Amino acid sequence: MSEALVVFSGGQDSTTCLAIAKANHPIVQAIAFDYGQRHRIELDQARYLADYTQTALKIVDLSFMSSLTQNALTDSTADISHPDGQLPSTFVPGRNQLFLSVAASWAYQLNIQHLYTGVCEADYSGYPDCRYNFIQSLEHSIQLGMEYAIQIHTPLMNKTKAESIQIMQQLGCLDWYAHTHTCYRGHRPPCGTCPACQLRAAGFAEAGIEDPLG
Amino acid sequence: MSEALVVFSGGQDSTTCLAIAKANHPIVQAIAFDYGQRHRIELDQARYLADYTQTALKIVDLSFMSSLTQNALTDSTADISHPDGQLPSTFVPGRNQLFLSVAASWAYQLNIQHLYTGVCEADYSGYPDCRYNFIQSLEHSIQLGMEYAIQIHTPLMNKTKAESIQIMQQLGCLDWYAHTHTCYRGHRPPCGTCPACQLRAAGFAEAGIEDPLG
Repeated sequence: MSEALVVFSGGQDSTTCLAIAKANHPIVQAIAFDYGQRHRIELDQARYLADYTQTALKIVDLSFMSSLTQNALTDSTADISHPDGQLPSTFVPGRNQLFLSVAASWAYQLNIQHLYTGVCEADYSGYPDCRYNFIQSLEHSIQLGMEYAIQIHTPLMNKTKAESIQIMQQLGCLDWYAHTHTCYRGHRPPCGTCPACQLRAAGFAEAGIEDPLG
Repeated sequence: MSEALVVFSGGQDSTTCLAIAKANHPIVQAIAFDYGQRHRIELDQARYLADYTQTALKIVDLSFMSSLTQNALTDSTADISHPDGQLPSTFVPGRNQLFLSVAASWAYQLNIQHLYTGVCEADYSGYPDCRYNFIQSLEHSIQLGMEYAIQIHTPLMNKTKAESIQIMQQLGCLDWYAHTHTCYRGHRPPCGTCPACQLRAAGFAEAGIEDPLG
C-alpha cells in the first residue's frame, strides 16, 4: 500500500490513527492545525509525538477559525458545558470539514491518496461531523472537486476507547500514549477530574491496561 | 425569502451573484477571502463594491493556502498557462471546497441558510470544483456535518458570460461592473489582451452591451 497522511492533533485518537496508518503504509506523514485552540500544549504534544515517532509533520495556521466562531475551544472565557440533548459548547461548526478539506489539498500536493482521521461515531460528543455518513459524503465531494481518488480512512469510527487502547497494545505502541494530550483544562500532568480525563481513565480501566501517562 | 450570504471576490461572476441574491433576499451579506492571491486589487475591488452596494462584507484571512500549493494564482513567478486537456496552472486543488466550507461556517454563525456562489460549469477553465455535481455533493456534506439545512445557490452554473451580463442589465445593476476586477495581469484599467480580459470583452460583445469598465 502506498503513502498515507494522518490528520493529527497530539490527542489519543489521532495518535492511535497514526500507529494504525504506520502499520498499513510504508511511508506516513502527518498534518496538524493551529486554530487558536484553548491549549497550546496540544500542538506541543503533536510536535513531540511527530518527532518521537519519526513522522514528517506539517502544521497549518488556521487561526482564521477563531474569527468565525465563538466557543469554548477557542474562547478562554467560555464555560465548557454539554447540556443534555444539545451540541457541546466546544462545537466549532464545520471544523472537521475544514480540517479534512485542508488535509486533502495537502495530500494532493504530496500525491498521497490515503487520508486518516481519528473521528469516532461512538464518541461521547455527538458531533455530526464525526459520523460515518458525513465522512463518506465528504470523501465523495473531495473526489469530485479535485478529480482525485482520495480515500478517507476512519479506523476508529466504531471503536470504543478501550478497543483503541487494545489496538495500540497489539501494535506495540502503548508508550506513545505517554505523550498524548487529553485534559480539557490543559494540565500536564492531567487534572484527572475533567470529563476528558475521566473518559480516558474509564477507557484504560475497561481495557485492563495501565495508562502510561499515569 | 430569508437572508443570504454571497461568496464574493470582486470579480464579474460573484458581482452578478450578489445582484441576483439581492433581488431574491431582503438581506444579503458577503464573504471574501484573502489567500495570497496574485493581485491585491481583487480584494480592493471587493471592498469597494461591498461599500458601493451597501453590503456587509466579512474578509477572512486564508493566507495558509499559499503554504499548501504552488501555482500561478499565488506564486508571482509562475507562468499563467493552460495547456490543452490539462488543468490550468492557476488551479488551487480544493479551493472552492475551502471557500464554501469557510463560508458555510460563517453562514451558520449568522443563522443564514442560503449561500450563493458564482461558479460556472460553462466556464472556460474546466475546474472540477466549479461543476454542479461537486456543488451538490458538497451541499449534502455540509448539511450532514453541521446538521444545518444550508442551500448552495449557483445561479450562473449554466449561464454564458453574455447571459450573465444581460441578467445584470435586467436587474439594473450594469454599473456595478465598472468596479469589478477581471484582468489576470492585475492592471486597472485592464490590459485588454490577457485571456481573462479577452473573455470579458467577448461576453459583452455577444451580449450587445457596452462594458462600463471601458
